[in-house]
Amino acid sequence: MVRIKRRGLMLVLSSPSGAGKTTISRALLAETDDLTMSVSATTRRPRANEVDGVDYFFVDEVKFGLMINRQELFEYAKVFDHYYGTPKEPVVEALREGRDVLFDIDWQGTQQLAQRAREDLVRIFILPPSMKELRRRLESRASDSAAIVDGRMGKANNEISHWAEYDYIIINNDIEESLNKVRSILAAERLKRERQIGLVEFVKGLTDGH
Amino acid sequence: MVRIKRRGLMLVLSSPSGAGKTTISRALLAETDDLTMSVSATTRRPRANEVDGVDYFFVDEVKFGLMINRQELFEYAKVFDHYYGTPKEPVVEALREGRDVLFDIDWQGTQQLAQRAREDLVRIFILPPSMKELRRRLESRASDSAAIVDGRMGKANNEISHWAEYDYIIINNDIEESLNKVRSILAAERLKRERQIGLVEFVKGLTDGH
Repeated sequence: MVRIKRRGLMLVLSSPSGAGKTTISRALLAETDDLTMSVSATTRRPRANEVDGVDYFFVDEVKFGLMINRQELFEYAKVFDHYYGTPKEPVVEALREGRDVLFDIDWQGTQQLAQRAREDLVRIFILPPSMKELRRRLESRASDSAAIVDGRMGKANNEISHWAEYDYIIINNDIEESLNKVRSILAAERLKRERQIGLVEFVKGLTDGH
Repeated sequence: MVRIKRRGLMLVLSSPSGAGKTTISRALLAETDDLTMSVSATTRRPRANEVDGVDYFFVDEVKFGLMINRQELFEYAKVFDHYYGTPKEPVVEALREGRDVLFDIDWQGTQQLAQRAREDLVRIFILPPSMKELRRRLESRASDSAAIVDGRMGKANNEISHWAEYDYIIINNDIEESLNKVRSILAAERLKRERQIGLVEFVKGLTDGH
């Protein structure tokens, strides 16, 4: 059984809230070897049960400013009162070791990643089959008020308007079918010639007569 | 269930003889909707059981010359005394109708296709796990003499030297595992944004509030 050294990739899943991204991410992470979730840095305070370094890297504003200045972040954004960003170093290390990193980020974060790491980036956008179905899914989350649902529907239109900035598009008719599609994309991208960096040596050994 | 109009793709499988390409092609064709084998034109005479338009388009030398001249071939080559080539028109029609076409061609044909249809082309190269294993597989074909096996091993080295001209590389450790990898590549490539030409209209309808 031949195993080839490979370079990891950055898998971005974006979608409007309610289109199925979180369900797909969780299932994919649970079943896939060599795939970890990117952990963001944030200036917001930890909630109960949130663990530093697992859910987020919790830092203060000064530290966040230093990270921006030292170019230690792949991308960052201010959302309401707090900053969120992707620390570079854990991602760079994962890619070098042949592990893939999953990003649950919006179109703005994806644009910034594309400027800094285009070759390593695989961008998937998940669309709902209809806005009516998206609303139904958002409303079925018992915890959210009508106002929150309305707000999310408004943001969904904006998010969807960036669909053409992605490499792959999945319409989430059925969650299991969509998960299968994401699985195929990840499997295929791992087989790309340029990611299988050990192939040069392998083919040399092959044709040298070993 | 939303179905999006898509543009077909040209799937090239290349490998040295004995690396598993034919087995994988047959299995893939048997199980996959909207995938047909490209039928080559040739000047060689039909063998018993070969059907014109199914196994090959059998044409004479003059007709083949005219096809070259009218640019009706995607690629062609002379192998020993006979010409072989890929007629353009059935491929162009398939792609337009959203059907994929499978090509079992060597590196020279692949190079020519890449010059003429880069955007539609998905190139997979299948490598044997070792030359020893390749020889074992060739020898296990009871019908082939030692001289034929030696000839094929010689040609294998030449074919393999072009591995880096392909988009995806599969090392065929196990035929079922390799078939799965080809399935994933085809599924992923069908999900590429630019092949799903109906998406522009779909997203327009989505955000117009239908």
